[in-house]
Amino acid sequence: MKILRVLYQGKPEWAALSGKILKLLESDPYQNLKFAKDISLDQVKVLSPVEPGKIVLAGLNYLDHAKELNMEIPQEPVIFLKPPSSVIGDNENIVYPDSVTRLDYEAELALVIKKTCKKVPREHVFDYILGYTCLNDVTARDLQKKDIQWTRAKSFDTFSPIGPWIETELPVENLKIESFLNGKLKQSSSTANFIFSVPELIAFISKIMTLYPGDVVSTGTPPGVGSMSIGDRVEVSIEGIGILRNSVTSS
Amino acid sequence: MKILRVLYQGKPEWAALSGKILKLLESDPYQNLKFAKDISLDQVKVLSPVEPGKIVLAGLNYLDHAKELNMEIPQEPVIFLKPPSSVIGDNENIVYPDSVTRLDYEAELALVIKKTCKKVPREHVFDYILGYTCLNDVTARDLQKKDIQWTRAKSFDTFSPIGPWIETELPVENLKIESFLNGKLKQSSSTANFIFSVPELIAFISKIMTLYPGDVVSTGTPPGVGSMSIGDRVEVSIEGIGILRNSVTSS
Repeated sequence: MKILRVLYQGKPEWAALSGKILKLLESDPYQNLKFAKDISLDQVKVLSPVEPGKIVLAGLNYLDHAKELNMEIPQEPVIFLKPPSSVIGDNENIVYPDSVTRLDYEAELALVIKKTCKKVPREHVFDYILGYTCLNDVTARDLQKKDIQWTRAKSFDTFSPIGPWIETELPVENLKIESFLNGKLKQSSSTANFIFSVPELIAFISKIMTLYPGDVVSTGTPPGVGSMSIGDRVEVSIEGIGILRNSVTSS
Repeated sequence: MKILRVLYQGKPEWAALSGKILKLLESDPYQNLKFAKDISLDQVKVLSPVEPGKIVLAGLNYLDHAKELNMEIPQEPVIFLKPPSSVIGDNENIVYPDSVTRLDYEAELALVIKKTCKKVPREHVFDYILGYTCLNDVTARDLQKKDIQWTRAKSFDTFSPIGPWIETELPVENLKIESFLNGKLKQSSSTANFIFSVPELIAFISKIMTLYPGDVVSTGTPPGVGSMSIGDRVEVSIEGIGILRNSVTSS
């Protein structure tokens, strides 16, 4: 099932997409789903499918990316945070900051936490996941190199497109993941190339910090990252989920 | 005035401390304050005075610390994030993770945002600040060195003690800031040694990301950081605010 957040009659609402029918939910999707009335997709604006309390991302996590960079396979994940204020939804614009000289896309599979978890063992991780979505880890590459710390480079408003929805039924061991810039294929890999699997990542992160419903964990990007210009259209496409589309505008 | 969050009759409430009288607030302190009934301090448990949407911290920001480290004065702030899940209040325990071999205190002056701000000019920054509090930027120094990225080292649950309250009337240009370990003075400096002032920091950060009511910005730590052991009691004391006290426990 696909879980969406939508703007309906001026109010944000949760909804589930079943075929072409959009069913409004009575409450958030972290509880048992209760369906309210059916409406049509053209009555709503689709919002980012989650308002995360935090966004935790894994660095280098694709074997093919590590090979491309001639890097050793890391022994444990490197993690970093993006602020909730950086989130936008499908079809919203990525704003190219004046102060940035190189702005990159990074296609990622992200997951949304369903239940509070702390120190969760690998074999129970899937009990705590609501579902999966596409995330573009937009990065000011010039600032990333300059600062050493990645925070500024990744924290500008609009730098975390997430969407278009959360797919709740999805085996994630071998999904095609791609990005396109102005329709041209730029990244193409599979989650089969993960260095750290979803259970390994969540077990690792939840040993550090408690994860809450709505928190987002993103799983790293495959080879082929590159830069965007104002006016470009970028797409993150993940098999079984869908396509997250955003354009780049000036600030 | 001192703004507190307290647990009163089993529920979290906002309150203002005026002398020894605690006045409950009708709503959060980001709006005009309306006072409800008076209660006594011994009827409540003091909670962390803020539930931040994000915590943005400045790295090296004391001239005396830069000299101690023989580092050049940075041209612009280096920023990083801590997750909201790491926040604890006054008198709550810092948990020493099993996986950590060196755990440090870092006394900091933190401020709490009152009104949404984006690209705020330096001269208007104080209009957007609710007040000031003490923050201990607890850091696993071993993991910080290992990871290069500071996120894991600073993101464990309980690694962001904040409190005991928010002081709303405070000129912050020249405040004594100290930390004590088991009663022994460890850090002692003044905010007069800031490399980047509060207006400079907020102007810089709000060019990157929108700051929302309740967001916390912390201003860096002076020289003298050092390690803590299980059983230690650590205090962050800031002139005009008060003392944030926490003990270190095993996990």
